[in-house]
Amino acid sequence: MANRYAVIMAGGRGERFWPQSRLANPKHLLPIVGDRALLAQTVERLLPAVPAGRILIITNRQQEAAVRRLCPLLPAENIVAEPVGRDTAAAVGLALVLVRRRDPEAAFAMLPADHVIHDADAFRADLETAFAIAEGQPLLVTIGIQPTEPATGFGYIERDGPLPQPRGAFAVRRFVEKPTREVAEGYLATGEYYWNAGMFFWRAAVVAEAFARHVPELWSGLLGVERSLAAGAALDGVLDQLYPGLPKVSIDYALIEKAANVAVVPAGFDWDDVGAWPAVARHYPADAAGNVVRGLAVLEDSANNLVVSTGDHLVALLGVKDLVIVHTPDVTLVCPRDRAQDIKALLKRCASTAELKQFL
Amino acid sequence: MANRYAVIMAGGRGERFWPQSRLANPKHLLPIVGDRALLAQTVERLLPAVPAGRILIITNRQQEAAVRRLCPLLPAENIVAEPVGRDTAAAVGLALVLVRRRDPEAAFAMLPADHVIHDADAFRADLETAFAIAEGQPLLVTIGIQPTEPATGFGYIERDGPLPQPRGAFAVRRFVEKPTREVAEGYLATGEYYWNAGMFFWRAAVVAEAFARHVPELWSGLLGVERSLAAGAALDGVLDQLYPGLPKVSIDYALIEKAANVAVVPAGFDWDDVGAWPAVARHYPADAAGNVVRGLAVLEDSANNLVVSTGDHLVALLGVKDLVIVHTPDVTLVCPRDRAQDIKALLKRCASTAELKQFL
Repeated sequence: MANRYAVIMAGGRGERFWPQSRLANPKHLLPIVGDRALLAQTVERLLPAVPAGRILIITNRQQEAAVRRLCPLLPAENIVAEPVGRDTAAAVGLALVLVRRRDPEAAFAMLPADHVIHDADAFRADLETAFAIAEGQPLLVTIGIQPTEPATGFGYIERDGPLPQPRGAFAVRRFVEKPTREVAEGYLATGEYYWNAGMFFWRAAVVAEAFARHVPELWSGLLGVERSLAAGAALDGVLDQLYPGLPKVSIDYALIEKAANVAVVPAGFDWDDVGAWPAVARHYPADAAGNVVRGLAVLEDSANNLVVSTGDHLVALLGVKDLVIVHTPDVTLVCPRDRAQDIKALLKRCASTAELKQFL
Repeated sequence: MANRYAVIMAGGRGERFWPQSRLANPKHLLPIVGDRALLAQTVERLLPAVPAGRILIITNRQQEAAVRRLCPLLPAENIVAEPVGRDTAAAVGLALVLVRRRDPEAAFAMLPADHVIHDADAFRADLETAFAIAEGQPLLVTIGIQPTEPATGFGYIERDGPLPQPRGAFAVRRFVEKPTREVAEGYLATGEYYWNAGMFFWRAAVVAEAFARHVPELWSGLLGVERSLAAGAALDGVLDQLYPGLPKVSIDYALIEKAANVAVVPAGFDWDDVGAWPAVARHYPADAAGNVVRGLAVLEDSANNLVVSTGDHLVALLGVKDLVIVHTPDVTLVCPRDRAQDIKALLKRCASTAELKQFL
């Protein structure tokens, strides 16, 4: 069996977790849920199924130093920084180039850095299943999350018939973009749709063929990167020179939605992409009034609030309900739970005010 | 004309302005409204009508150092610290003893330290009127605040007929304790009631007679203080020895409400006792949505909030209304404006929790 690799995409901005997340310190670098950064948890969850030497991280120059600090187990050369963002297809293509230089026969996983999964054993069991399918068949394999509500914030995967083997895995009929509420309710009712969590498994050769077929221009650019590396050029220099010229397109749109050879393994583990502050409350016990507190707080006649405070700062709530209060040393956010998804409007306001830009 | 003195009572706890106010740093030591501490503003408002050398402050041992820092113009001996609190009658009696040791013929004013008055000229004009009445007639003179609403948080002064002179001053029929809403509405309708703001003017000899008549036990104790000082004992030592034994009673209950020789000067100045956080908003311009911000804040879709922040800390509000948010370096308070008067419940909770006592 060829080696298995895992490539973690760690380049998001994490605006929704402002003020804890900042431009240079986004969600996956923070302990939004748990005591370790989400990226560090993602790495740990892979071990020992994929050893540290075969885990790669694709991040960006702004976050590179923080990523290296958070992932001391990984060899230095396994952390790669994009000079500029070129969306996910280019990042996956870069991962492909890096993996097949090490082992052309390898299979590798593409994984997001900032999801919360508590049941690591179940995750690794599905990882094993997905790798096994990808190694045995020329398929692009994804893990689909069983929907628990008609969410409109995720893309969906519609399954087709079962694979001959293993039991429980399915062919994929199609990927669909974020649906309306009504459409999502229909999906949920059929039981044949999964949330697309952006987890993919494939052999290098199989995904290379998909790149060549579905995004030939991008693939041509990536082959240029590969040739320069083969000629002995240093990675950072090659990326500085060639990466900005790559087409900017998402892996879902460019490749996954177009491919006919996709399979899905329904996830047997808990999963949360923790899309905004209110989601954090799901992962901590609430008091009798429904308040969830991380840090130091005193509450009087207050219900269903989420308090996140840092250091020894005390958050004092009196007579309030359904609020999110996030205290950091230089910013305190107060908003209703059901408005937390609008946080970008605040950031826009900060961006347009000279004296507030420092808080982004 | 004998000398005029002013004695400022500066011993309150200011719990309602937590977390800015603390046990050792109550309201009058803070710039709750304006850029200087309320006590410093009170001193400045008296100048030059009463010169610094004849302004005394009665505070307590916990606040003494802060009071001295805030009032550098006052001679050191003019700042007197009670060793223990014995309510307002004892404090006024102590003021009387201290003033008549300097000048038995003096008239003096008793004034609260923590009220907000913007029109200092009008204040000094009424001060002149009140002093003149007290100096010319054996009356206990108060300044009454014209009620603007049927407040239930103040005592009221019912006026009687006009004094022969000066024009606009009245005899007082009675002082009444905080009324119910209904009763207060009746008071307001008559136009013959004023709020009792705790400002008094009298000659030393006149108020001494009132003490002797209405609170003989307290007066006897105060004469003991006076004798010890006359015998050359140091003030702090005398207070340590005799002050704790004085009866604990309020000046209103013990003396003012019982005296028959009280006059009232209707205030010609603006006045606000700034009883709790929401009152602060009255003194600052609001934005178009009714938000008042002291400090640094960014607001999105938020209305009628009061934000008070210190230093360079940013308070970010999204989709909230009618809240009070007060940020200090170690505590952030969030509560609805109409719950700010219940802040003592939060403090009680802090007092009963070992790790939170440090925040009181």
